[in-house]
Amino acid sequence: MKSEEVFGEVLRTIRKKQKMSQEKLAFQSNLDRTYISMLERGVHQPTQNSLLALAKALNMKASELVELVEEKIDESK
Amino acid sequence: MKSEEVFGEVLRTIRKKQKMSQEKLAFQSNLDRTYISMLERGVHQPTQNSLLALAKALNMKASELVELVEEKIDESK
Repeated sequence: MKSEEVFGEVLRTIRKKQKMSQEKLAFQSNLDRTYISMLERGVHQPTQNSLLALAKALNMKASELVELVEEKIDESK
Repeated sequence: MKSEEVFGEVLRTIRKKQKMSQEKLAFQSNLDRTYISMLERGVHQPTQNSLLALAKALNMKASELVELVEEKIDESK
């Protein structure tokens, strides 16, 4: 699995746990809903600024988000 | 200071601490030397894949790299 796909799964899982719609996450993070959809499908990989914005909107740190991605990448090895 | 500039400073500081040239970091991370130079000058912001590749080359986790960036952003607030 590519690292952008891992990120997409992590993002979708956290968003759903917080019962947040893509629209709401887009609004809170000031990112486009279409962009968030592409991130969740692993079509795009996030930039540092997207990571910071998404993490803030999800009430966590960007480093925590990246840590979850790294754990999932390690698991899949 | 923009978050890409913060990243650039963090990257350069860690690289120099490890006495690694931009050329060596480029080789180890499989990224272009010019791209690394642009990252360090804050011209570009890193993508998730660059973060993962740079962190690996610097013998650390990408989440640790992002944590240093977040700490520096918080300090500057």
